[in-house]
Amino acid sequence: MRTQVVIVGGGPSGLLLSQLLHRKGIDTVVLERKTREYVLGRIRAGILETGFVELMREAGVSKRMDAESYVHDGTIISYGDDKFGINFKELTGTSVVVYGQTEVTRDLYDAREAMGGKIVFNTENVSIHEADTNAPYVTYTVDGDEQRIDCDYVAGCDGFHGVSRQTIPLDVRREYEKVYPFGWLGILSETPPVNEELIYASSERGFALCSMRNENLSRYYIQCSLSDSPEDWTDEAFWDELKRRIPAEEAEKLITGPSIEKSIAPLRSFVTEPMRWGRLFLCGDAAHIVPPTGAKGLNTAASDIHYLYHGLVQLYETGDSKGIDTYSEKALARIWKAERFSWWMTNLLHRFPDQTEFDHKMQRADVEFLRANRDAQSVLAQNYVGLPY
Amino acid sequence: MRTQVVIVGGGPSGLLLSQLLHRKGIDTVVLERKTREYVLGRIRAGILETGFVELMREAGVSKRMDAESYVHDGTIISYGDDKFGINFKELTGTSVVVYGQTEVTRDLYDAREAMGGKIVFNTENVSIHEADTNAPYVTYTVDGDEQRIDCDYVAGCDGFHGVSRQTIPLDVRREYEKVYPFGWLGILSETPPVNEELIYASSERGFALCSMRNENLSRYYIQCSLSDSPEDWTDEAFWDELKRRIPAEEAEKLITGPSIEKSIAPLRSFVTEPMRWGRLFLCGDAAHIVPPTGAKGLNTAASDIHYLYHGLVQLYETGDSKGIDTYSEKALARIWKAERFSWWMTNLLHRFPDQTEFDHKMQRADVEFLRANRDAQSVLAQNYVGLPY
Repeated sequence: MRTQVVIVGGGPSGLLLSQLLHRKGIDTVVLERKTREYVLGRIRAGILETGFVELMREAGVSKRMDAESYVHDGTIISYGDDKFGINFKELTGTSVVVYGQTEVTRDLYDAREAMGGKIVFNTENVSIHEADTNAPYVTYTVDGDEQRIDCDYVAGCDGFHGVSRQTIPLDVRREYEKVYPFGWLGILSETPPVNEELIYASSERGFALCSMRNENLSRYYIQCSLSDSPEDWTDEAFWDELKRRIPAEEAEKLITGPSIEKSIAPLRSFVTEPMRWGRLFLCGDAAHIVPPTGAKGLNTAASDIHYLYHGLVQLYETGDSKGIDTYSEKALARIWKAERFSWWMTNLLHRFPDQTEFDHKMQRADVEFLRANRDAQSVLAQNYVGLPY
Repeated sequence: MRTQVVIVGGGPSGLLLSQLLHRKGIDTVVLERKTREYVLGRIRAGILETGFVELMREAGVSKRMDAESYVHDGTIISYGDDKFGINFKELTGTSVVVYGQTEVTRDLYDAREAMGGKIVFNTENVSIHEADTNAPYVTYTVDGDEQRIDCDYVAGCDGFHGVSRQTIPLDVRREYEKVYPFGWLGILSETPPVNEELIYASSERGFALCSMRNENLSRYYIQCSLSDSPEDWTDEAFWDELKRRIPAEEAEKLITGPSIEKSIAPLRSFVTEPMRWGRLFLCGDAAHIVPPTGAKGLNTAASDIHYLYHGLVQLYETGDSKGIDTYSEKALARIWKAERFSWWMTNLLHRFPDQTEFDHKMQRADVEFLRANRDAQSVLAQNYVGLPY
């Protein structure tokens, strides 16, 4: 088999790239380790930057998103019982969109199917060969049969644990990492969100986030110990703890209900450099991870796809390789900014086990400065809605 | 002896308060542990916020400062060989003034002498009594003779090691502290400054600062180990290391010469709460210390003096104690902001022994974001020129 671009990984990044390239007449094959149902079962982020929304529109998959998503013009930050708003729209002229990653992925699968996009599920033993030559190929097995696809380029969209990054030799690859000493315990519940905007809550008991998917589907998180497991937390214990971390005024309004999903996610900052090796390009979680504070995960993947998509189109349409030659540099420049923002917002709002009383005071002073200073709010807002590509 | 306000400490804070109160007809006595010559021998900061300059004008001691100081409309930040300016004037409408603390103190001594201000030098065993009653008094010895001054109020302007803070009982006093794992090795040299503006230099070898007192008196600093002593550093070794930490373009212009002073200062963040206990008010270093990054030391003292001066004048002129009753709260609110800024700027520009490669990347991303983002520059500028009183 032969294609122009093999895309390793059928999550939102791989599907979006496949969809965008297909519409420009560039042939792709997507290799996914799991089934479509499995991919759609993953609960992930739900805040989209306008850059991401534009890309979905360019890919022709925005119809349901445009109809069903919620525009958020701002967010709320609280500390103890105090709270204040950051008005993105007023500060930057831009907003963000609430639309679950699961929905994004579903729309992309539907669009890929409608166009006859080639997606191979249940692929095992995926291996990328000769990526540093002009004749790369990818091998894998499905139901025990070994397959081979020759291609021009490989896009590694297979996440943090995927093979794509591992394909880059260790003497070329440089990795930067910070593992945070806590996790997020998250639940999904079929209850109306406590507030129409997200609440990022800093408290003496730790961080909490009140988020949502739609008007009857709420997503709440509390900072927890890495040694906790979801079974340690009854729904009642979760709601009680959440109420202690958000302003009393919000806690009183909170409508609770049974959780329909409960899980713990660790927090990690991670970047690998370079993001290109020969004809292999890393995108999204394969190259970088951010802690979820600030909702940059899916959005950083989108900026990679933006750069790679435009680079490949430029190459196939004009023969000019400038776009793909500068891919790693351009993608990383934006990634480091998103890493900085996610790291900063995580530091601002969480309790860390080794903090001194002075550190707590500095954290508090940081939040109070943000409350009082319009330019500081503008810096947050610009980062939150997404820095320019 | 009796006076209205006993001021413990004859550094710039105590002298300025004494001078301001005297002009409003309020009687003070300043007690200084050392001699005038000793106090004037201390080399300290040289960047004044406009709020401080205004206070000097209100105290009638600005004549020489207005004639001989230098207005700085901005500063330079460098990292490796890259550098960029922060234009305070453009971003905030305000500037800072370069005028050494030694000169400020000299002008204040001259003014106090000219007005017949009461300053007692060489005081030993200063002790503050009954500060939580309506009849406080201060005892001390000079040349072995014990003295006593009864007063209405005591202003503790005697620095970090002074007795004023220690007078507040431990069950009332709460202290917050961070000691940084490095020092600043500073030299004074009779050479022209390398640049007309200050250069705050971040480098892989550590922080450096190019500062100045006037057009033929330069002040340079390099971050050093706390285990170093000034004798470990020849002038030549200092200049060599400084050149490695500033952009090559600046290093080439640097005119070196013999040091006329060389010393190492530790870096500390410290705040004590409350700043008032009964009739005792803490001002300046007696209540708080900032690391020198961002030049807030003398300026935080000035804001305390501003609040205490106005509070005391209000009380003596109208009988209204509101100003002094809210002194601690108002002074601390501004102090924590300056603490935050100094801590942030120290973290931004220094190398820390426990930093990981990821941390270095975040530091770099922080500096690059600052370079690229006008609102982030404005936040720095507003803090640097001084937040409103």
